[in-house]
Amino acid sequence: MITIPTLLLNEKICRKNIKEMADKARRNNTILRPHFKTHQSIEIGRWFREEGIDKITVSSLKMAVYFVQDNWKDILVAFPVNILEIDTINQLAGHIKLSLLVESVEAVDYLAQHLKSPVSVYVKVDIGFHRTGVSWEDHQTISEILKSVTRSGIISFSGFLTHAGLSYKSRSISEIQAVHDESTSRMVNLKKHFIAAHPELKISIGDTPTCSIIEDLSIVDEIRPGNFVFYDITQVIIGSCSVNQIAIAMACPVVAFHKERNEIVIYGGSVHFAKDSITDKDGKTIYGWVVRNDGTGWGEVIEGAYLRKLSQEHGIIYAPADIVSEYKIGDIIKVLPVHSCTTANLMKEYMTIDGRIISRL
Amino acid sequence: MITIPTLLLNEKICRKNIKEMADKARRNNTILRPHFKTHQSIEIGRWFREEGIDKITVSSLKMAVYFVQDNWKDILVAFPVNILEIDTINQLAGHIKLSLLVESVEAVDYLAQHLKSPVSVYVKVDIGFHRTGVSWEDHQTISEILKSVTRSGIISFSGFLTHAGLSYKSRSISEIQAVHDESTSRMVNLKKHFIAAHPELKISIGDTPTCSIIEDLSIVDEIRPGNFVFYDITQVIIGSCSVNQIAIAMACPVVAFHKERNEIVIYGGSVHFAKDSITDKDGKTIYGWVVRNDGTGWGEVIEGAYLRKLSQEHGIIYAPADIVSEYKIGDIIKVLPVHSCTTANLMKEYMTIDGRIISRL
Repeated sequence: MITIPTLLLNEKICRKNIKEMADKARRNNTILRPHFKTHQSIEIGRWFREEGIDKITVSSLKMAVYFVQDNWKDILVAFPVNILEIDTINQLAGHIKLSLLVESVEAVDYLAQHLKSPVSVYVKVDIGFHRTGVSWEDHQTISEILKSVTRSGIISFSGFLTHAGLSYKSRSISEIQAVHDESTSRMVNLKKHFIAAHPELKISIGDTPTCSIIEDLSIVDEIRPGNFVFYDITQVIIGSCSVNQIAIAMACPVVAFHKERNEIVIYGGSVHFAKDSITDKDGKTIYGWVVRNDGTGWGEVIEGAYLRKLSQEHGIIYAPADIVSEYKIGDIIKVLPVHSCTTANLMKEYMTIDGRIISRL
Repeated sequence: MITIPTLLLNEKICRKNIKEMADKARRNNTILRPHFKTHQSIEIGRWFREEGIDKITVSSLKMAVYFVQDNWKDILVAFPVNILEIDTINQLAGHIKLSLLVESVEAVDYLAQHLKSPVSVYVKVDIGFHRTGVSWEDHQTISEILKSVTRSGIISFSGFLTHAGLSYKSRSISEIQAVHDESTSRMVNLKKHFIAAHPELKISIGDTPTCSIIEDLSIVDEIRPGNFVFYDITQVIIGSCSVNQIAIAMACPVVAFHKERNEIVIYGGSVHFAKDSITDKDGKTIYGWVVRNDGTGWGEVIEGAYLRKLSQEHGIIYAPADIVSEYKIGDIIKVLPVHSCTTANLMKEYMTIDGRIISRL
């Protein structure tokens, strides 16, 4: 029985999301190296393995260590290498095919001096998003990094990696296609420039909107989407998925009503949902959509019912009066999250709709 | 040695914050029932006990269970009672003086039917902030709740509780004073109205800005601030504290540079800091202020250096060029958090500046 805020997982939807992405990668003859930061769960990882996946992406060495426990042998840590963790890098590199991300000669030289086993590296490329990475136009820095890699004798070069973060600002398929076309053309140009000297180099892209929407991904060698395992409201708004593809929902106890304001107070706040929000077309801030209860699972989105405010431990649902009157204190109300990665990160475990607990890192 | 994002705690500053609030409560002859949700640590709780504190506030029954382990005997769960957790309520009420928060007849009647040991309740009053609680003007609902309480035979009435959340929007002492004056006058009026029938009733207020700034708190019977144990940038902006009173800082490895943009990339993102931000007077969004390294601790804020962007695992520091050039890959950069409650909630443990780990729930 659910008595506190609980993150529900619909295994069937989740497995379908995994299968569809794996099928698409196969159709495109592209490697799917899914990002496991969204689910961070050994059990859910196994659902990927059942679809033939054997290469994964994580965002920290700690996460790599966790998945090594379940026998994953080819792991990319898609984060600019943190040289302070050289001991963990050496422990992992002695046992698995470890790939790291670099964006400076200094980091490569440090690895060259301190590695005890081979690793491969991707060079992080900034495709115009200006978070991290070497600019796609800065061939000189890239050449210097690659020279250091070659000189090291212990580091191999996997290819160029980018994250087309601008796709998250898209609101239509044509906008995502435009982001994809621009970023892949930049990546393909880089590949052309460097492939003679590095014939094995791959280009790797990794955002859920692009990988979900673009049918022809054959131009890239590897895709690393993560969020698609659960999807969320943000992805629905972008156009990456339909609401029926969202695989998680928060189940929250009803603790109070303010019927004069059409409000239901729930146990479930920013320490459960995180603070991610969307702004709807009327300018309203929305922290979640309310869905119908359907036994231990959930059904359709209730028109006009949404999570409008989040305090630390509680949230305020706004709903039409007839909906408010359907609930009483002690009922469970179910809410689709705005951003599944951050919600799952806070909740630390999942409950499947048949009541089984799935743990995560 | 610090190798990953680590939440540093300056014990001396923290103990001073605790002592000053305890002294102020004593001067005002007011009960200090500190909110432990900010630190959620048995060890830090003991620093309060050394200052004579024996009554505490928490925001969940789970937190109450945690602190009962360390022999806290008088605990208020300042959250609208979640009747689905009646079993935990009964376990606690059998062992300690448990206080709950109610705002409806339905919740009181449910407790009356299911309690096995006495509890006391506060009525949550909405003083105009419109999150939760019965409106301060709605004497009828309050009367009905109190009648149910009296009728129950097992529930006693502690008093009226509010949270003057509007003080968080204040930006000066005079604004906070105005919020305080208005909310306490409303609470005092309520007290006058109901005290004849309930001579023991207390009024309880609980926000850090008010409790930090207002010198004369003698009009209220109980204060429940929480954040003051650490303070943070938000409280500096409000005017509740000086920057030297902030007791925690994040220590983050430097992983990359983008010197053409005066940027330092750190290992430390929204999964470490949370996403709280402030907007400075030029309209810039700020997720943290950079402070000087000072051995294992930290020193002054570096003028013009701040955390400007947060991705999930990494952050981007902007700093003047001469500051950027002081750092190299593998250094540690220290950052004051915008909101200490949410940062501490994500980090799950503290490291004192002499290297000791302090755990939390």
